[in-house]
Amino acid sequence: MIINVRTTQDQQFIDITSQVRQFVEQEGLQDGCVVVYVPHTTAGVTINENSDLTVPRDILTTLNKVFPVTGDYRHLEGNSHAHIKASLVGSSCTVLVENGQLQLGTWQGIFFCEFDGPRQRRVQLKAIASR
Amino acid sequence: MIINVRTTQDQQFIDITSQVRQFVEQEGLQDGCVVVYVPHTTAGVTINENSDLTVPRDILTTLNKVFPVTGDYRHLEGNSHAHIKASLVGSSCTVLVENGQLQLGTWQGIFFCEFDGPRQRRVQLKAIASR
Amino acid sequence: MIINVRTTQDQQFIDITSQVRQFVEQEGLQDGCVVVYVPHTTAGVTINENSDLTVPRDILTTLNKVFPVTGDYRHLEGNSHAHIKASLVGSSCTVLVENGQLQLGTWQGIFFCEFDGPRQRRVQLKAIASR
Repeated sequence: MIINVRTTQDQQFIDITSQVRQFVEQEGLQDGCVVVYVPHTTAGVTINENSDLTVPRDILTTLNKVFPVTGDYRHLEGNSHAHIKASLVGSSCTVLVENGQLQLGTWQGIFFCEFDGPRQRRVQLKAIASR
Repeated sequence: MIINVRTTQDQQFIDITSQVRQFVEQEGLQDGCVVVYVPHTTAGVTINENSDLTVPRDILTTLNKVFPVTGDYRHLEGNSHAHIKASLVGSSCTVLVENGQLQLGTWQGIFFCEFDGPRQRRVQLKAIASR
Repeated sequence: MIINVRTTQDQQFIDITSQVRQFVEQEGLQDGCVVVYVPHTTAGVTINENSDLTVPRDILTTLNKVFPVTGDYRHLEGNSHAHIKASLVGSSCTVLVENGQLQLGTWQGIFFCEFDGPRQRRVQLKAIASR
């Protein structure tokens, strides 16, 4: 399945946990895992705290300090920083499923990570049964 | 299955390779993969060298230099650095299984990564058959 | 299956997309995912843009600026920087498969990441069916 995500800022974390949870229910997956995959090279996906929005804010701010938007880059599109961040947070997340339920920790949410927006983006979901 | 991990330091890598190997044997998984998942937002899991303990030491020290414990963070709990590190090393690892054996490289071990301890932590394991 | 990769530089991204695609066809996997796993501790695997080679160049250069080759490291082999980078980009990637086709995004390629070469390296591939 594909989730469409509309980002509205140049860099932004968007919580997609409820869509992933809904997907698991629709698929009827009882035991296994869900792979959340981002088919873009300047965006990624990560799992982190989604109850206090200062957490994604601090992650984005700190990544920008360490991997600045402007720098000694050769790639002419001006978004090398976004490619770097995408490779560091990664293009996929795997979350376990047991008894039909997504096994996220208490404070965990799944975030689509926009590093070069705003854009129309997609997230692919796949249910994998344990056997 | 769930592994309980008791961390004893604020930041610490704990080798959980033997528990993961034991899990694969118990499950009787012959061919597929094991997903090692950390349901916390200030801890993660990574695969790296476990024969020379200066390696995890250097990884932790360097991460602290680049993503310092204290900084210009908004999150009031004082552990933003740990959330950042958790997103960078990631909340899960996937290791292949063939002929009932975990397919780790010669020097590879699986480390639980504590970034905001000491705490009582959990690691979830799931065996996924190839077909 | 195992892919052999011969790296020729100390740090280098090598595009292995075509080998992974060929593997999916050989396996006849219709629906599921492929796990690309690197059994080394000073190398990794990442997904990023493979049409403009300045992108992997900028990623490597920036990682070297942030995690320098020489530094205050204890590990005596002189490759701590490579272990750190390996844990950050990660030792595996998961890519979805639908209708027998690898579901990479338009600009995405799969790169073996050499951080301590040149060496003879291996990449393990595993096809996992969705159910």
